[in-house]
Amino acid sequence: MRDIFDAELTQLGDDLVTLAGRVERAITDAGVALLTADLALAETVIAGDLEIDALERDLDERCVLLLAQQAPVATDLRIVVSALRMSATMERMGDLARHVAQVARGRYPRHAIPHGLSGTFAEMHDAAVRVARRLTTLLENRDLAIAESIEQDDDLLDELHEDSFTALLGGSWTGTPQETVDVTLVGRYYERFGDHGVSVARRVVYLVTGNVGEEISAS
Amino acid sequence: MRDIFDAELTQLGDDLVTLAGRVERAITDAGVALLTADLALAETVIAGDLEIDALERDLDERCVLLLAQQAPVATDLRIVVSALRMSATMERMGDLARHVAQVARGRYPRHAIPHGLSGTFAEMHDAAVRVARRLTTLLENRDLAIAESIEQDDDLLDELHEDSFTALLGGSWTGTPQETVDVTLVGRYYERFGDHGVSVARRVVYLVTGNVGEEISAS
Repeated sequence: MRDIFDAELTQLGDDLVTLAGRVERAITDAGVALLTADLALAETVIAGDLEIDALERDLDERCVLLLAQQAPVATDLRIVVSALRMSATMERMGDLARHVAQVARGRYPRHAIPHGLSGTFAEMHDAAVRVARRLTTLLENRDLAIAESIEQDDDLLDELHEDSFTALLGGSWTGTPQETVDVTLVGRYYERFGDHGVSVARRVVYLVTGNVGEEISAS
Repeated sequence: MRDIFDAELTQLGDDLVTLAGRVERAITDAGVALLTADLALAETVIAGDLEIDALERDLDERCVLLLAQQAPVATDLRIVVSALRMSATMERMGDLARHVAQVARGRYPRHAIPHGLSGTFAEMHDAAVRVARRLTTLLENRDLAIAESIEQDDDLLDELHEDSFTALLGGSWTGTPQETVDVTLVGRYYERFGDHGVSVARRVVYLVTGNVGEEISAS
């Protein structure tokens, strides 16, 4: 019985890594589509979000089945409940990637992000991709140093988000209302990638160490 | 044993209603703070979000304890897992109310929403308050007609959100970049209230209609 349960927990871990990998792909492609005005890539991300949603549903069903059939307690229970939460958060990261891709598609053939801010958004993209890639690695190997570096990239995303507001509100902004709207929304999506990444990372830390971080839920 | 479990499930339902009530209060106050530039009320919402976070944590701990001690199956398990999800979604609605209040506070003593859009945002506020109030009622009495009316207000929020973009992008917009940013962000927060409300409502519908199905198959 215990062997079967261990195999199922391992499978659950593998499913989380698969989901994280798909989300990493979506975030990477969405950012490239945004920064290079690549319509086909934007469409790929938008269509691919259905797959991420399906992966989340499968993972959740597996969790509920595990709870029903194995009635786990203590650490095992914590793992299953955490998996439910992490899958919901990663599904949300997939939604955000879709939103970024939708902005890219909506402005095509123009670039959604005006030239003067393309450097800031390229940095945001790089940081978001690092967060997503490290989440996948963290879920694979539970190396807590990785969790720390995710927190750092979240701080960087907050700073870059602030920079984008400074550009919009500093008095020398000459963008159109559409550009202002796009910079505002896309900046927020990137800031949220960081929050969600930290939320998942802290759950992994909690599972490994038993220590609750300052605040697990992404705000 | 079963009696104790039933009492705990009832308590879980009561906790969800309490959480929904606190979120309803936050959404109501945040909107009033926004529309009337009421600094004190904005501060109340911002400070009160910590209470909502604490209610969510308590509720989640109760769910995990229930899973560990009672090992529920079938409908009971679905109720507990749904409670975990609904509490996370309502906590998120509380965060959004805090974000609205933070915009109101940041622009004080000015109104964040320019005069020309105050009617649209007053309608968004009304719809969001109805969504939150009906969620509380739905969690109390499980009347599925209420779930339907939440879906309708979500549609209305989507329309009003579109209206706000039309105003920004229609060519006659003369607002400052700060106003454009605020309208963009606050409009998105209101649109998300509707999405989250529908998410919780659908979980209640699933629980209720699932229950009916089980009763039928058991008889």
